[in-house]
Amino acid sequence: MEELLKIFDEYRKKIKAYGYAMGVISWDSATEAPRGCFEERSEQIGTLSAMSYELSTSEAFSDIVDAIYNRRDEIDSLRKHEIEVVKKDVDETKKIPQEEFVKFQILIAKSQDIWLKAKQAKDFRIFKDTLGEIIKYMKKIVKYLETDELKGYDVLLDRYEKGFTTKEYDAFFNKLRTELVPFFKKITKIKSIYNFDFNKEVYHKDKQKEFCNYLIDVLGFDRHYGIMKESEHPFTAGNSSTDVRFTVHYYENDFISSIFSAIHELGHALYEQQVNPILNHTFIGGGASMAIHESQSRMYENIIGRSKMFWEAHFVKLKETFPEQLKNVSLDEFYHFINTVKASYIRTEADELSYPLHIMLRYELEKKIFNDEIGIEELEAKWNELFYDYFGLHVEDASQGILQDIHWSDGTFGYFPTYALGSAYASQIFFHLKKDIDVLEPLTCEKMLEIKTWLKEKFHQYGASLYPQDLLKQALGEEFNPDYYINYLIYKYKEVYNLEK
Amino acid sequence: MEELLKIFDEYRKKIKAYGYAMGVISWDSATEAPRGCFEERSEQIGTLSAMSYELSTSEAFSDIVDAIYNRRDEIDSLRKHEIEVVKKDVDETKKIPQEEFVKFQILIAKSQDIWLKAKQAKDFRIFKDTLGEIIKYMKKIVKYLETDELKGYDVLLDRYEKGFTTKEYDAFFNKLRTELVPFFKKITKIKSIYNFDFNKEVYHKDKQKEFCNYLIDVLGFDRHYGIMKESEHPFTAGNSSTDVRFTVHYYENDFISSIFSAIHELGHALYEQQVNPILNHTFIGGGASMAIHESQSRMYENIIGRSKMFWEAHFVKLKETFPEQLKNVSLDEFYHFINTVKASYIRTEADELSYPLHIMLRYELEKKIFNDEIGIEELEAKWNELFYDYFGLHVEDASQGILQDIHWSDGTFGYFPTYALGSAYASQIFFHLKKDIDVLEPLTCEKMLEIKTWLKEKFHQYGASLYPQDLLKQALGEEFNPDYYINYLIYKYKEVYNLEK
Repeated sequence: MEELLKIFDEYRKKIKAYGYAMGVISWDSATEAPRGCFEERSEQIGTLSAMSYELSTSEAFSDIVDAIYNRRDEIDSLRKHEIEVVKKDVDETKKIPQEEFVKFQILIAKSQDIWLKAKQAKDFRIFKDTLGEIIKYMKKIVKYLETDELKGYDVLLDRYEKGFTTKEYDAFFNKLRTELVPFFKKITKIKSIYNFDFNKEVYHKDKQKEFCNYLIDVLGFDRHYGIMKESEHPFTAGNSSTDVRFTVHYYENDFISSIFSAIHELGHALYEQQVNPILNHTFIGGGASMAIHESQSRMYENIIGRSKMFWEAHFVKLKETFPEQLKNVSLDEFYHFINTVKASYIRTEADELSYPLHIMLRYELEKKIFNDEIGIEELEAKWNELFYDYFGLHVEDASQGILQDIHWSDGTFGYFPTYALGSAYASQIFFHLKKDIDVLEPLTCEKMLEIKTWLKEKFHQYGASLYPQDLLKQALGEEFNPDYYINYLIYKYKEVYNLEK
Repeated sequence: MEELLKIFDEYRKKIKAYGYAMGVISWDSATEAPRGCFEERSEQIGTLSAMSYELSTSEAFSDIVDAIYNRRDEIDSLRKHEIEVVKKDVDETKKIPQEEFVKFQILIAKSQDIWLKAKQAKDFRIFKDTLGEIIKYMKKIVKYLETDELKGYDVLLDRYEKGFTTKEYDAFFNKLRTELVPFFKKITKIKSIYNFDFNKEVYHKDKQKEFCNYLIDVLGFDRHYGIMKESEHPFTAGNSSTDVRFTVHYYENDFISSIFSAIHELGHALYEQQVNPILNHTFIGGGASMAIHESQSRMYENIIGRSKMFWEAHFVKLKETFPEQLKNVSLDEFYHFINTVKASYIRTEADELSYPLHIMLRYELEKKIFNDEIGIEELEAKWNELFYDYFGLHVEDASQGILQDIHWSDGTFGYFPTYALGSAYASQIFFHLKKDIDVLEPLTCEKMLEIKTWLKEKFHQYGASLYPQDLLKQALGEEFNPDYYINYLIYKYKEVYNLEK
């Protein structure tokens, strides 16, 4: 066994090194690489990823994995979990014929460009056939991956959040639909008493950056092991717990965008930094799942970052940073500004309450697609129809409707639902956190450190060494329950909009 | 043959992809990576470079190279040159026992740290034994690599500049010693009539950056295929002609440092950008040799960048950038300021005239080391003695003497001489350039474009597809001749210091 593990570790080291290299290159691409280098660069990335693929799907590696897997009762629990995860990956890859896989990759590589053109032209017809092709391939892939337990769309859902299939998601989204859609409609009918004119001021980029740097210290991101930078779209890149990076984008006419995207990314980044370093060399470093990761970013961004107690402690600094622009703005006004609910087209710009409705719509459509209940020809009309049902708005062009997200163009069906699930996890986690930490007083730096430490102990340190549902149960002593989310949203927005509780 | 080349190209693609990945990672390391990541990172780099080494020294690749090499008359001249270059590398690597090579790498990995400690403590004794070890290994390596033509130190010299051995360098440095040492001493005795108080002002970093951005446009660096950034020590990184990056360091109390290091690095960067893109995928992209590369950076930095005609065109902009600090400074004063000659300890800060004397000293010592004429115990004393001979200064501590450069700590013996040779090439090249382009008028952007185009046609486009001496001969119609360098320096500094010509 020792011999087997030694060989496994050799493969792991190499596969991880490829991943590391591609991680640094893609960080570079997103933040500063000269525009002219991308043609050349995509060839180099192609070669590196082909070498990595070759190694991780090699007969030799697969044999080692099988050999260890068959004797997995002889190894410690960390090793055991890791080998199960790897075995699943290797087996999945083996199930898809390589030729098919390569063809799909080529299709995906082209399709993002076509999607972008279609979005810019606001014309779904440009992308329609390509999307049809992608769906055809995805259905083929699903067929290859089906098991006794997992069929159809469930194959994809389980891929992004182990233990979550249509059964669990249906229960979740049905609740949201019943409880939140009417509540959301009620809220949007309330006329605001605020004008928020301060948002029309110019907020200098350097000043926004200064405030984001303040937030880094407030949330407790360790600069020794990480950096903040700029990019077109904010994101977090965790190469290991010792190298975590996140980006922000500054809009001078929309200053809260950088603030809340910094807090959001810091939620991801703190998670990555607090993973136990012994997992850095393994395949089970990083976050437990997409939804658990998203729970951390959304808890920081929304539950903490949009709370009155957070700004009780930090609004002073914000006013100091923008003394002219915020001269006449009270904490109460600011609090209502950052918690304004309204029906809007774009998911990524949606407020906390309407956000899950955007996800629900995508879930419904994806389910119909993989249940063969809807064809590519009817997709746009169906999108627009559902959108009107939930938001009461007519989609005027496809760029604010079916073409707004990149996800379908790179074949990541089954991924959207994790965004809403992450928010729901966040509410449940925060409910338990409140039992240990008093959050009804200003969330000063010290308080934020307590929160960070609590999250490390309960969640972050474990990285991906537990499956998401096991982690939740271990940390909270109960299973996932969507009621916390619904209760949180309704309670909070009744308070914000001054409705009887 | 076609089959062989196809296999060769497959290997080449992979080896280049490793190089590309390590290039991006090391750029990241030098410019922005969080300090805490380096331990983890060095393991990843270790793995990548081991994989790359394994591939490029594999029996299989070596066989392919041999097979093509033996039939090299059947292929075009570019391919032929490339296979000769690769064959030499592969053969060299095969000559050094792998065990020996690995031990040496481990020694080198540790030694830079020891060197740095010694330098900080200003105490050569801390580094002495390690340097002794390195030299012992280097001598062993030299023995492995010796051929009928190349023995001892010549093996190392030829490695960094093909065609240059002690024979050629002796002739070169003897001339410098005879002509320049007395001239330098004469110049340093002249008392300056200027005070240069403007150099005591503070020059804001952002403003320096603004001026460096101006220089980018003046010299014609293509931002579409490159970027400028900051790092502790300025350097240029060319991943391919489509991705060229350089760095600058800003000192607020020494504003010309960033200006001349930007011009220097731009000289390297323009070279990399102007290499024919068809060479990007080959092993013969980039520059023809270290010395040829250095000729471009030094020509831009010194011959052009410190000329009156350059500042005739651009001093206005400099004054605009620093209106307060340069209010009372005339072009003449500035010109004399940037061409001040003085005896100084640190090579990298030396002026154009004394620079080659610093190199000469290192060349003398390296020659003695590899001719077994000097032992590690006498090295520091000999350094200090030679330094007094050339500069008339007593070395007061090792950090301004034998410990100042990193080179010996990583085993790059034979490298220093290329710095002086590069300057000499530059003078010869510029002499010929002047026949085609009138440089006795202000060097405006248009003029600089003419120069850039001339260099592209004569040198840059060829990348490393010709050996340096062949390239020089093809471009200039004559062989290397150090007289151009000596004449240039004496003529220029007689003019600067107002001596009869």
